[in-house]
Amino acid sequence: MQMGHSTGDTPERNVADEVSRIIEQSKELQELATSLISRTSEEEASLRQRALALRSNIKMLRSFIDSSLKKANLDPNNAQKMVEELSRVSYTLSEGDAAAFLPCKSHGRFLRMFLGPINVRANRKNVQLKVKEEYNNFRDTTAYLFLSFPSILLMLQSWMWNGCFPSLPVQLYQAWLLFLYAGLSFRENILRVNGSDIRPWWIYHHYCAMTMALISLTWEVEKQPDCAQKQKGIQLFLKWAIMQGIAMLVQNRYQRQRLYTRIALGKARRMDVVWGETAGVEGQLWLLCPMLFVLQVFEAYVGVLLLKTAVVGVISEWQVVTCGILLIIMAVGNFANTVETLLSKSRFKAKIKKGKT
Amino acid sequence: MQMGHSTGDTPERNVADEVSRIIEQSKELQELATSLISRTSEEEASLRQRALALRSNIKMLRSFIDSSLKKANLDPNNAQKMVEELSRVSYTLSEGDAAAFLPCKSHGRFLRMFLGPINVRANRKNVQLKVKEEYNNFRDTTAYLFLSFPSILLMLQSWMWNGCFPSLPVQLYQAWLLFLYAGLSFRENILRVNGSDIRPWWIYHHYCAMTMALISLTWEVEKQPDCAQKQKGIQLFLKWAIMQGIAMLVQNRYQRQRLYTRIALGKARRMDVVWGETAGVEGQLWLLCPMLFVLQVFEAYVGVLLLKTAVVGVISEWQVVTCGILLIIMAVGNFANTVETLLSKSRFKAKIKKGKT
Repeated sequence: MQMGHSTGDTPERNVADEVSRIIEQSKELQELATSLISRTSEEEASLRQRALALRSNIKMLRSFIDSSLKKANLDPNNAQKMVEELSRVSYTLSEGDAAAFLPCKSHGRFLRMFLGPINVRANRKNVQLKVKEEYNNFRDTTAYLFLSFPSILLMLQSWMWNGCFPSLPVQLYQAWLLFLYAGLSFRENILRVNGSDIRPWWIYHHYCAMTMALISLTWEVEKQPDCAQKQKGIQLFLKWAIMQGIAMLVQNRYQRQRLYTRIALGKARRMDVVWGETAGVEGQLWLLCPMLFVLQVFEAYVGVLLLKTAVVGVISEWQVVTCGILLIIMAVGNFANTVETLLSKSRFKAKIKKGKT
Repeated sequence: MQMGHSTGDTPERNVADEVSRIIEQSKELQELATSLISRTSEEEASLRQRALALRSNIKMLRSFIDSSLKKANLDPNNAQKMVEELSRVSYTLSEGDAAAFLPCKSHGRFLRMFLGPINVRANRKNVQLKVKEEYNNFRDTTAYLFLSFPSILLMLQSWMWNGCFPSLPVQLYQAWLLFLYAGLSFRENILRVNGSDIRPWWIYHHYCAMTMALISLTWEVEKQPDCAQKQKGIQLFLKWAIMQGIAMLVQNRYQRQRLYTRIALGKARRMDVVWGETAGVEGQLWLLCPMLFVLQVFEAYVGVLLLKTAVVGVISEWQVVTCGILLIIMAVGNFANTVETLLSKSRFKAKIKKGKT
């Protein structure tokens, strides 16, 4: 920009020139932007068409091979090879650059309720991976806090509080649980939109846990003649939370390893999340599975205990009954989903073995 | 796809052909996708450069005109015209298609805490407008509920509950407030990222309101010898909420009108949000402003009353003290921001008048 420096012109004249030049530039820029946007939309739409067509062709060919195998029209060895090739193409389609143009999963009620109609899908692969990485880090931090928060509460209870919890620290813990499960729900819903095929149950589980945290907040911890009796449920819940924290740490480590292995093998999309009570790397399943089942049984036990105290009439608040029911629902759901994961794993293994022999 | 239908070929052969054709298609598709992504990124980057350059040129030229005016180097009439032209260009830049390529505002801690590093900016203008429209609808629904929820509670109190609130309905109301303010915080943070210049205070206000709702949940409403004394604060808060609901309805109507007027005049970016206790259409300011100031005084009064009951010692729970302080902070903040909005409005008017004479 040169203004008012050339000889012979008034500064007024120069400024006016500059203004009209800027107006020109602005018009040009707007036109370029409009054309870029419309051109990109068109090209994206055409790529979407092609990607969808390819996806349905793969599906058709796969079922054709399956039916031909049954009719013994194909050599099983050749068929196996072709199915493997198709799997590889299918993986590339869902994991490569073209995946950005496939239509994404619905955002679901939870995200729409809190965020409105905004799109949370990342089109660039590196952003998707950043999201996944941040989720893994969040889960790690979570696991440490999940372990230490209740440990501190239980220690303080026996050292300082003479066996009785004051309300405030317990309520702080419950508020933290609310925040934590909200963060997990948001992140996992966002991962789903970005192509992860996390089991829906784990997200429902977080909704249950959020509800339970909210209800616990309204429950009066102190001010009872016999606090030890009333607080037995809390104490057990805290002990369960410590074990859960340990299990989460073990799981996080194994699931990351497993994810990396599966990525290397090309079997998983990188957006896959296997949160919570599912399985780890093969050999380590023997450590994880018993841990998870013990935790689930313990969770259900705390739930039943809460219901029992309510039925016997020691504490009859509605919060106790509802939390008891929620704990049992979560335990049963976790159990069912862990078993299902193990079953689908062994089915997958059987299939591979069958293919190899 | 034609498989196994041509004469002379084995079905095996046909399937193998089809598989290799699919592999070819997949490769081609991935290459197209990669090239589209990299081409688009390049073009976007170049447009971003140009848009940024234009923006800084406009700014420089504006300050040059200002300083020339002071040195009396320019005719004020001409200068006024040029400034108007520059404003129009500036408006187009922030509102037109090119705006999608300008770097967006930081997402802020709140969004990052709950959502992780996902981008919530809409690049297409029509999506941005959908987000804004949904926000307006959310605010409307909110206003009706804000009005009816406490009305129902107060009616039931005098008709069914003999002057004393049971805990559950009050806690449900508080949980709803928590949900509501969370929804508003998410939506307004998202609007900010999408270019709205909503005052940051209104978002902080929602954080305060969320904290207060969470704290209220832990506060025991019932089980006191003298419930009427203890519940006086709740009763006043509910009455304040009814008035607030009415004020919100009036405001929503006027602010939509004002936004449409301002869009028509080209003075506002369409993402602008003027939530809460700011101003409506000119003439209606005489109705709104007194309403808002009365509400703010009443809000502060409820806060002071809560603090007083705590100091006198009728109720000494920490929740009462904290809620009292939060109410006073919100009232003072709302007042300061309403006054500031009015002042900037009158400064703007004075400037226009000065420009015209």
